[in-house]
Amino acid sequence: MSSSGWILALCLVVLEGGRYAVWAKEGSGSERNCSAIPPYLPPTAVNTTLRLRDLRASMIPLNISAYIIPATDAHLSEYIAPRDARLAWMSGFSGSAGTAVITQNKAVLWTDSRYWIQAERQMDCNWELQRDASIRSITNWLILEIPEGDQVGFDPFLFSVDTFGVYNTNLAPAGRILKSIPDNLVDKIWTDRPPLPPDNPTRLPDSVIERTWPMKVDQIRAQISDNPYKPTAVLLSALDETAWLFNLRGNDIPFNPFFYSYTLLSMDEIWLFVHIERITEELKVYLNSSCYNSYCVQLLEYSSVRTYLKSYLQRLNVRVWVGTEYTNQALYELITPEDKLLTSTYSPVLTTKAVKDATEQRILKEAHVRDAVAVMQLLMWLEKKVPEGTENELTAAHFVDQCRSKQKNSRGPSFETISASGPNAALAHYSPSNETARKLLVNEMYLVDSGGQYLDGTTDITRTVHWGEPSDFQKEAYTRVLMGNIEISRTIFPAGTRGVNMEMLGRRALWEVGLNYGHGTGHGVGNYFGVHEWPVGFQSNNIPFQEGMFTSIEPGYYKEDEFGIRIEDIAVTVPATTKYGHNYLTFETVSLVPYDRKLINTSLLSPEQLHWLNKYYETIRSVVGPELERQALKEEYDWMMKHTAPFLMAEASAVISSVTLLVTVLPSVLLHNLL
Amino acid sequence: MSSSGWILALCLVVLEGGRYAVWAKEGSGSERNCSAIPPYLPPTAVNTTLRLRDLRASMIPLNISAYIIPATDAHLSEYIAPRDARLAWMSGFSGSAGTAVITQNKAVLWTDSRYWIQAERQMDCNWELQRDASIRSITNWLILEIPEGDQVGFDPFLFSVDTFGVYNTNLAPAGRILKSIPDNLVDKIWTDRPPLPPDNPTRLPDSVIERTWPMKVDQIRAQISDNPYKPTAVLLSALDETAWLFNLRGNDIPFNPFFYSYTLLSMDEIWLFVHIERITEELKVYLNSSCYNSYCVQLLEYSSVRTYLKSYLQRLNVRVWVGTEYTNQALYELITPEDKLLTSTYSPVLTTKAVKDATEQRILKEAHVRDAVAVMQLLMWLEKKVPEGTENELTAAHFVDQCRSKQKNSRGPSFETISASGPNAALAHYSPSNETARKLLVNEMYLVDSGGQYLDGTTDITRTVHWGEPSDFQKEAYTRVLMGNIEISRTIFPAGTRGVNMEMLGRRALWEVGLNYGHGTGHGVGNYFGVHEWPVGFQSNNIPFQEGMFTSIEPGYYKEDEFGIRIEDIAVTVPATTKYGHNYLTFETVSLVPYDRKLINTSLLSPEQLHWLNKYYETIRSVVGPELERQALKEEYDWMMKHTAPFLMAEASAVISSVTLLVTVLPSVLLHNLL
Repeated sequence: MSSSGWILALCLVVLEGGRYAVWAKEGSGSERNCSAIPPYLPPTAVNTTLRLRDLRASMIPLNISAYIIPATDAHLSEYIAPRDARLAWMSGFSGSAGTAVITQNKAVLWTDSRYWIQAERQMDCNWELQRDASIRSITNWLILEIPEGDQVGFDPFLFSVDTFGVYNTNLAPAGRILKSIPDNLVDKIWTDRPPLPPDNPTRLPDSVIERTWPMKVDQIRAQISDNPYKPTAVLLSALDETAWLFNLRGNDIPFNPFFYSYTLLSMDEIWLFVHIERITEELKVYLNSSCYNSYCVQLLEYSSVRTYLKSYLQRLNVRVWVGTEYTNQALYELITPEDKLLTSTYSPVLTTKAVKDATEQRILKEAHVRDAVAVMQLLMWLEKKVPEGTENELTAAHFVDQCRSKQKNSRGPSFETISASGPNAALAHYSPSNETARKLLVNEMYLVDSGGQYLDGTTDITRTVHWGEPSDFQKEAYTRVLMGNIEISRTIFPAGTRGVNMEMLGRRALWEVGLNYGHGTGHGVGNYFGVHEWPVGFQSNNIPFQEGMFTSIEPGYYKEDEFGIRIEDIAVTVPATTKYGHNYLTFETVSLVPYDRKLINTSLLSPEQLHWLNKYYETIRSVVGPELERQALKEEYDWMMKHTAPFLMAEASAVISSVTLLVTVLPSVLLHNLL
Repeated sequence: MSSSGWILALCLVVLEGGRYAVWAKEGSGSERNCSAIPPYLPPTAVNTTLRLRDLRASMIPLNISAYIIPATDAHLSEYIAPRDARLAWMSGFSGSAGTAVITQNKAVLWTDSRYWIQAERQMDCNWELQRDASIRSITNWLILEIPEGDQVGFDPFLFSVDTFGVYNTNLAPAGRILKSIPDNLVDKIWTDRPPLPPDNPTRLPDSVIERTWPMKVDQIRAQISDNPYKPTAVLLSALDETAWLFNLRGNDIPFNPFFYSYTLLSMDEIWLFVHIERITEELKVYLNSSCYNSYCVQLLEYSSVRTYLKSYLQRLNVRVWVGTEYTNQALYELITPEDKLLTSTYSPVLTTKAVKDATEQRILKEAHVRDAVAVMQLLMWLEKKVPEGTENELTAAHFVDQCRSKQKNSRGPSFETISASGPNAALAHYSPSNETARKLLVNEMYLVDSGGQYLDGTTDITRTVHWGEPSDFQKEAYTRVLMGNIEISRTIFPAGTRGVNMEMLGRRALWEVGLNYGHGTGHGVGNYFGVHEWPVGFQSNNIPFQEGMFTSIEPGYYKEDEFGIRIEDIAVTVPATTKYGHNYLTFETVSLVPYDRKLINTSLLSPEQLHWLNKYYETIRSVVGPELERQALKEEYDWMMKHTAPFLMAEASAVISSVTLLVTVLPSVLLHNLL
């Protein structure tokens, strides 16, 4: 937007009597200051005055006092296509998590601590920021703000059944009524909304597949027929459900190989809802789409899913099974009466997909070996280049993306690389831009959280490094984060234990000294899917761990305005051999990149932790070593060998101080034994 | 019942075509064998044939195909009065947890692993035992067993709102209809049902109270008026809610100082539902029951609660706040329409009561010091008497009960003492009887889980001992259980952390070698209430830990047919001083009885664990020592001093072996540093 545009916007604000704001070039700081006179807005803030005016106008004829705008899409995706970025377009805030509520005189954004600073940088003074991102906080605000009996509008496509349920449970007793409005109000005023992405879905090559789609269909049908509630069909709403079932991938969402789709799978029919024009003739053959028996995929238009679901429900004796976390309310609200419905938290596709088969496990581990090469190339390059003072966060991000792109089966990054130096890393999910990119300096800590999409697997790894002299506190914090990572990684637990009941192991070494972190400890990951592949992980709504699940383990620590630390690895659950029991699991780390030795204070580590670390380094040598040799990366090989040298001295010195202790306590020991 | 009664019963079974059973004196084993011909029943089994016949007859006019009988009472109590033991009377099974379902041709009991063996000893062959005690297992069984469209009867007084919700969520989609039957069917056929217990409620002396009842009423009213949903009243349904609010105690349930009651507390009225004839004139004055203003307690008949609740709900603009875990469905189902209702998992009374005030904390700790004296007296006595071969499980239980009764403010045991030797201890909640009492032997492990009610506090402690030569496995298992106890006790965590997210610390040392235990890790405890004082503890439905909560910490290990280990202490959450943070908590153990040194393999303990143990023993010496001296218990004092001697040798020997390691690894360390 040109500067004359800003003047116009400013005039409009004043005319409307809203809080007025100035995009003052002469202001200072990267965050807005709405209590200054005139309010200060950084150049990153977005002018939302006109959009809010239009949206508010559209609310009046619908008789709603508030309108809720979530950050998701109709598939409850965590990452969304630009055309679904309604929250960002309305508010300016582009973080991946948040909810906006707009009334006739207020506009409020709720987001979590990862994004508070980003929101202050991107929002103008039309917007209020609420720092408690819970639904309870949103509904409490609504109850205070709008009168009893008033209606709150929402787009049912953008609410999961569960999310709608929580809103409704909170609002209904207070007499605030949720009004389902399937025609999205933002879309109506968003004149330059991006079009549908152009790419067609494609099938996965046989080399990365153990189960063909008819085999997967059989697997899910077996669960349909085994279910005591006798469902007749499963409705798949999340994009990775359909992609998994048919071994297809697309390109509709940046970094996520998905395509817009729903599936209704019954015992004798398969309905696939897609943009049919994107399905090539080859794919039609692959999907067996010209017939109507139980292994034929009937292609139906994406936008017709509600119509067809209704028609299916009019049949006699049907019952549709939906997972409530990933089915949107727009489909769910059609499934009436109650005896047509069967719910579980996750569909059988999501729980089946969570356990990787032998091929998936093998190729996902292989992808991590190649990915480790790329990350090592970055770390080695930074060690050389940073002291020259020529690199910044963006050039580093580009470098690692480039390294990955050279690896076999590369399909680009799995998310926007988080390359964050010094205070920028204290924003847990910061990504650099041209405006914010910080020069990399030898006296600042640097955090790089990045991942790749490969045809055979998705990766996600974070390393934090320091090229100069870290402070004692930085070393302590780093070591305690590492202790958290190791404690989870090495723990042995009964199959079926929930991640949420173990994740405190990732925090305990930090808690011990009064430190903590404000994000989750890990998420599932899989074979060329979204980088957060739920429902595996350490969150309270994640499913219990079984053998063959892949998860990230990623404790961290963030010191505001100074630095950020995160150590993230992907691990797979494997059987553990125990002295007395069976059916126990542990983690095997498949991300194979050494940690920054300079930041490790080995005297804090227990002997078990040190032992784990040395074994991990042995694995890196034995697994990534041959790959580096195969790729003829001699310098990287030497770098890797140097950085994976076993740790021993600290243990020895700890023993020595124990010996001192021994000498001190020995007389009293003898004394006590005489008692 | 005489032997001719059994013959009659047997004939009836045969006549009715049921599975017939023989109470064969000449049979063998303590458990029933229903597949033997004729079936074998131990003398502990109860003949339920006539009861089942009568109950089934009563189901027919109600048109229900199944009837559910839970183990609780109308207040969702964990321990119940004999007159509420409907499940036990119907099935013979007297364990504290279980659910029965009766159809016209089957009778099934669901209970958890603690009680499987007990159920096999107490039930006759009319009954089937289901070993998965989840509601899902019960409803899956119902769906298989009774046709779609049929009704399942239940007594809404015996179901919490939450429990009813789970049953309904599982059954409704399958077309099985829950039918609320407020007149209990068991009560109608239970001709010799015990009468109401005779004791009157009494008030607590001022010495054990910091907050008078009007102060507590103010505290709860403040929460009513602060709530954004604007409730007008709180309904209290759990017995400890009313007892706490009015600082009253009763004697209606063995081991639990409660009296049957409900309370409806609004901003300007207080309705107390009790058996009014039990309220003495003195109590009426104390409760200010002759007036009608906001600090007057209006006494209403216990049985009229539904009638009065309905009348309150007919007023304009009222909204009743209920906790869904402890309100029964019989009251909840009256609160319609939805805008008259506000729910939270727990009432504000239960969450307020969970945090003990300064007086409550002080006197509860004092009660534990006196309780420690009683437990030490038991352990010392056993050390002397067991080698003489004169004692058994029952005499030991009586001895500790007697020791407690001599302590100040004693009000009897807080539950039936679990005194279990050898294989009996593998039944986690076994209590000895004349039939089963096992002689105590020097070559068997012995577990004693007992507690006292004192006017100032409730205690609960478990110690496991061995008077001879424990095996290496017994020592390892014991030590690992102890490690679990210590790891929870010493952990530092942010205020507001949930117990369920830390309880794996109690299991981790066991998991490491493939061992585990099948019960929870701890429960709240308080000031002269039930020994399980929810919602504090380590279960998934427990509330987050705040400063001033008391909980048990009780990991265990059970080797079937051989032995059982449990180490249980009560601890209070206290502020932890940390290097960098604030608002962190840790546990301070208030049960002060040493562990069996003979069973501790100190080489398994980490230095931190050993340090904790020695500090704990120092505390026992400094806190219980003076009490033993005050009570002039010289022998017990010496016993305590001997058993709390600091542990040091094992640490020293661990250091020595580390030194050996040092010598071994030193050359390679030097080598690596040269790289």
